[in-house]
Amino acid sequence: MQAPVFGAGIWHFGRYVDRYATDGYGPPVNTLEAIDLAGKVEDLSVVDLTFPFDPAGLSVAEVAGALQRNGLRAVAVTPEIYTRRFSRGAFTNPDADVRRAAIELVSRSAEAARELGCDYVKLWPGQDGWDYPFQADHRQLWKFSVDAVRELADTFPDLRFAIEYKPREPRNAMVFSSVARTLLAIEEIGLPNVGILLDFGHSLYGGESPADAARLAISRGRLFAIDVNDNYRGWDDDMVVGSMHPIETFEFFYALVEAGWQGVWQLDQFPFREDSVQAATDGIRVMKRIHRAVCAVDRQALQAAQRSQDALAAQRIIQNALYGPYQG
Amino acid sequence: MQAPVFGAGIWHFGRYVDRYATDGYGPPVNTLEAIDLAGKVEDLSVVDLTFPFDPAGLSVAEVAGALQRNGLRAVAVTPEIYTRRFSRGAFTNPDADVRRAAIELVSRSAEAARELGCDYVKLWPGQDGWDYPFQADHRQLWKFSVDAVRELADTFPDLRFAIEYKPREPRNAMVFSSVARTLLAIEEIGLPNVGILLDFGHSLYGGESPADAARLAISRGRLFAIDVNDNYRGWDDDMVVGSMHPIETFEFFYALVEAGWQGVWQLDQFPFREDSVQAATDGIRVMKRIHRAVCAVDRQALQAAQRSQDALAAQRIIQNALYGPYQG
Amino acid sequence: MQAPVFGAGIWHFGRYVDRYATDGYGPPVNTLEAIDLAGKVEDLSVVDLTFPFDPAGLSVAEVAGALQRNGLRAVAVTPEIYTRRFSRGAFTNPDADVRRAAIELVSRSAEAARELGCDYVKLWPGQDGWDYPFQADHRQLWKFSVDAVRELADTFPDLRFAIEYKPREPRNAMVFSSVARTLLAIEEIGLPNVGILLDFGHSLYGGESPADAARLAISRGRLFAIDVNDNYRGWDDDMVVGSMHPIETFEFFYALVEAGWQGVWQLDQFPFREDSVQAATDGIRVMKRIHRAVCAVDRQALQAAQRSQDALAAQRIIQNALYGPYQG
Amino acid sequence: MQAPVFGAGIWHFGRYVDRYATDGYGPPVNTLEAIDLAGKVEDLSVVDLTFPFDPAGLSVAEVAGALQRNGLRAVAVTPEIYTRRFSRGAFTNPDADVRRAAIELVSRSAEAARELGCDYVKLWPGQDGWDYPFQADHRQLWKFSVDAVRELADTFPDLRFAIEYKPREPRNAMVFSSVARTLLAIEEIGLPNVGILLDFGHSLYGGESPADAARLAISRGRLFAIDVNDNYRGWDDDMVVGSMHPIETFEFFYALVEAGWQGVWQLDQFPFREDSVQAATDGIRVMKRIHRAVCAVDRQALQAAQRSQDALAAQRIIQNALYGPYQG
Repeated sequence: MQAPVFGAGIWHFGRYVDRYATDGYGPPVNTLEAIDLAGKVEDLSVVDLTFPFDPAGLSVAEVAGALQRNGLRAVAVTPEIYTRRFSRGAFTNPDADVRRAAIELVSRSAEAARELGCDYVKLWPGQDGWDYPFQADHRQLWKFSVDAVRELADTFPDLRFAIEYKPREPRNAMVFSSVARTLLAIEEIGLPNVGILLDFGHSLYGGESPADAARLAISRGRLFAIDVNDNYRGWDDDMVVGSMHPIETFEFFYALVEAGWQGVWQLDQFPFREDSVQAATDGIRVMKRIHRAVCAVDRQALQAAQRSQDALAAQRIIQNALYGPYQG
Repeated sequence: MQAPVFGAGIWHFGRYVDRYATDGYGPPVNTLEAIDLAGKVEDLSVVDLTFPFDPAGLSVAEVAGALQRNGLRAVAVTPEIYTRRFSRGAFTNPDADVRRAAIELVSRSAEAARELGCDYVKLWPGQDGWDYPFQADHRQLWKFSVDAVRELADTFPDLRFAIEYKPREPRNAMVFSSVARTLLAIEEIGLPNVGILLDFGHSLYGGESPADAARLAISRGRLFAIDVNDNYRGWDDDMVVGSMHPIETFEFFYALVEAGWQGVWQLDQFPFREDSVQAATDGIRVMKRIHRAVCAVDRQALQAAQRSQDALAAQRIIQNALYGPYQG
Repeated sequence: MQAPVFGAGIWHFGRYVDRYATDGYGPPVNTLEAIDLAGKVEDLSVVDLTFPFDPAGLSVAEVAGALQRNGLRAVAVTPEIYTRRFSRGAFTNPDADVRRAAIELVSRSAEAARELGCDYVKLWPGQDGWDYPFQADHRQLWKFSVDAVRELADTFPDLRFAIEYKPREPRNAMVFSSVARTLLAIEEIGLPNVGILLDFGHSLYGGESPADAARLAISRGRLFAIDVNDNYRGWDDDMVVGSMHPIETFEFFYALVEAGWQGVWQLDQFPFREDSVQAATDGIRVMKRIHRAVCAVDRQALQAAQRSQDALAAQRIIQNALYGPYQG
Repeated sequence: MQAPVFGAGIWHFGRYVDRYATDGYGPPVNTLEAIDLAGKVEDLSVVDLTFPFDPAGLSVAEVAGALQRNGLRAVAVTPEIYTRRFSRGAFTNPDADVRRAAIELVSRSAEAARELGCDYVKLWPGQDGWDYPFQADHRQLWKFSVDAVRELADTFPDLRFAIEYKPREPRNAMVFSSVARTLLAIEEIGLPNVGILLDFGHSLYGGESPADAARLAISRGRLFAIDVNDNYRGWDDDMVVGSMHPIETFEFFYALVEAGWQGVWQLDQFPFREDSVQAATDGIRVMKRIHRAVCAVDRQALQAAQRSQDALAAQRIIQNALYGPYQG
């Protein structure tokens, strides 16, 4: 079985801030520095770049150069439609000017993505939603969201847009909150170049089975990309992949391989207190272990167990693949 | 504003059992006894009847008679496709004979519903799903589910079928787990007589905003019925409506009224350790308070607040409606 | 490193009922039948017996005989203080007669435990707590609980009583809900023969780290017993051990071994839809894998990683022990 | 019944940052500016001040002056032991120098608190805990935590130290995670001047009943202070008090009043996207409504309902107090 291509969000190598350590978990890291850090990770081939680049004015060419000298490729661009200006919403902001600014920022990102030869533009409208009961007219938020993505996809028919759904955070509730809801929106949009980025952690803490969610998106031809990490099932902790839920991580990758899905095995980890290069290296090592386990599964036996929905048999088969054959 | 019609699932008046009190929280209650208890609840107009009736052999005519003498109407029939025979799945059971038995049981229920003049047949396939990672081929479960509901809706074009979705329990994961997922399935089914029964508690503990979920289903013409109750957001506790989350309960009913939705305000409470007649009476009293609050909302002010997504203004408006005007 | 002794709750081999499959997930299984099933599980040495035995009138001697012919020993007796009579509370029931009945049932269990030579009497007051806000005077519930356990421990000074704490279910909130709360109560009780049974799943879904909870109980000499299983972190699913959270299961057993704790590695699984003998066999197989991994940990390296609180290093060390050394 | 004193954490009026809006949800706000904003909130009497003051070098006298001219008093000082330097732990940092720096920062805060005549020094060691399984020796973290608080309380015997517990965030798991665990630590510390600050939201999302938690802390004379806010039960959302869970907020305040607890009714809200003065004003308005409801409770009837643990009766009584008497 072919080895997967490994990737990471460039923010993996950036600086983390939260509402307590407001001075950051470390010193600032700009785009080129982050790319250089990514370049140190063995087996990392592609990155997803946030846009605008940092510092302001950094050109696409300079970024492309940094990628090249580090042996990396940009798989995607992620416009930052969740910073202060967009804190009350990007596509769904009550202010029409801010909604327009969001479209424009994504458009500029799309142009950068085109120039960099990316596979997709990632849309993560994390501020689009609501915090309180009665705060918003939910139909209006839905319409704003659908219309904005349609406009973008229509304007850039040669590019693909991947919506990353998430139940919540930073907003208490997000419009694109689950795989099914996002698929409903995509059908309303009605264009071929809109799909889903499925983040394993978002799916897990949203109460989905990530493997099942992946199957559903694939069945409609809409699984454009994936991100992996891990968490305690109650929040988007963005821990190192496989550190908490290796069985479901294994099931997720197994589902992708079994469906013939060809895409990057990509990290979205937030190593707040850890060395970012080491955390990425360790994440890839875990994914390689899992890839080996995926290859080791007795597929005929597993299919038979699944046909009879035999949970115990299925567990024995996949444990033998993950831990090695059981010996007394 | 017109007073709503109040209803309840007949199981509200039945006997509860769980895995600890295996001898039941009280003595057995058969169908006619439960109807007589329901008849004692002031302002209760309709009930949802589980099928088969208890004891076996009890005729539709006898049930109709009991309803009539209690001033009640059957709004729905709910086939029990979740008892021992179906414990490994009804529509998704690995055994084709059991799948067929599930279809047949629903069909018999549909005939009873037709005879009783019900508004809909409720489908609650609570055993259809999986427990363990790797246990099932999720595509197969999805297909079994969609095909079964389509066959039923096709066979009974004069009846309506309302799917009650739920994240989990008794199965660790259910196929019809959320409003969006169920809407996706309904679109695949492609028939006009399939819709959703939205249980407030299922929606809440599934991480949805029940008001938003209702809007989404209504926008597609698929909200056939609702059930209400309350819980701790982590499980389907089926507590008395409004006892934990009155604000979101209020928002839910406000959304229904505002959308012009005409349907029964129906209880799905499980008063394990309480008097069932009193619990239903209290639930209706809470709904009446909420109905009064819905009527008292300053709708223009609320619309303005929602247009600017002003959470604080919206909260002040609805608190005045719920608690009475604020006085220093 | 010495092989652990493996055990199981006898209910593992019983019949399951819940509020949907009220006719049970299978036919009834009485005490002797359950013991015979337990006897079929290779490597199972001890069982925890619910009391009263089933059918009523079955003598301790008959039970002892069945255990002996199956090569089993009774490690504990668990009085059923959570059935219908106790559904509004055992030690905390508002009715003094029921509170007394609970004490008496535990006393009879204690006598059986003494006769069987058990290690402890398990107290699991699952109905002791409350469902609704404002329902109870929490101080009263606490006092009832503490007084009852003190009376029992005082009456049977030669026996040990292990309180099994749990956040909730069947009650929406339980008095003995966490390790720390139970330790507080035990200090108030002030007797040496009261301790804790730590159920891994209860701890996990209660938001504890089971390894940390075990350390805390051990540090006060109060960890009398443990049960293991697994779940989705939101409910007490009682799945086969290791099927969801093998890393934290591993950490839990590692903590026990590292602290020199000598006790039974005991299953509390509820295989609703699975073969109970196979589920127990599989659970023990998983525990053996984990025991092997515990032995394989590079303890010096792990201690160094923990001294510097180096999460990544610790993960690499324990992954090598669990999955085998990493090879490129 | 006497009107309560209302307070707020000064951060309520500050600037919010999170991991997405890294440029902040608004412009910076320094200590004096925040005090001036607090001064605009009608009925706000006291504030809890973070330390060091901002900008560095701002003297206690200057702060005292700003408080005075705004008609405010400092009820507490909260040392910032959770910023970058302490991001891998304050009292539990693996580096002894950082642990010492944490003690020193708290000591300087204590001196400021003494000078300002505060009621207590708040300890919120939010970075003290762990993120990953196997990362830390839990006994070591516990000992570090207990020893640090004991040293501080011993050094400042004239001051009171209130530990604010929280299940998690920013650390994935905190040492002082629940009321019971913190009470256990306080007993180990063995000094009279260490107590608890109970944050309603932390308690709620930690799975406690805040009313029950308050009772437990009061019963041991350790409830030094409280903070209120609201959330979705899954995270510390720090929403406006009463916006989600008014019933349990009501029960919490009722428990305080009923126990004769005399302390500030204090806000810990994070109005990320709202006007902070308005959010505090609204929070106080909600607390006044609840205070009125507390006064309106038919206490004899409620005690009778609680003696018989009658959930329905209790709900009727408190709904009449909260919403006004029910009228048909």
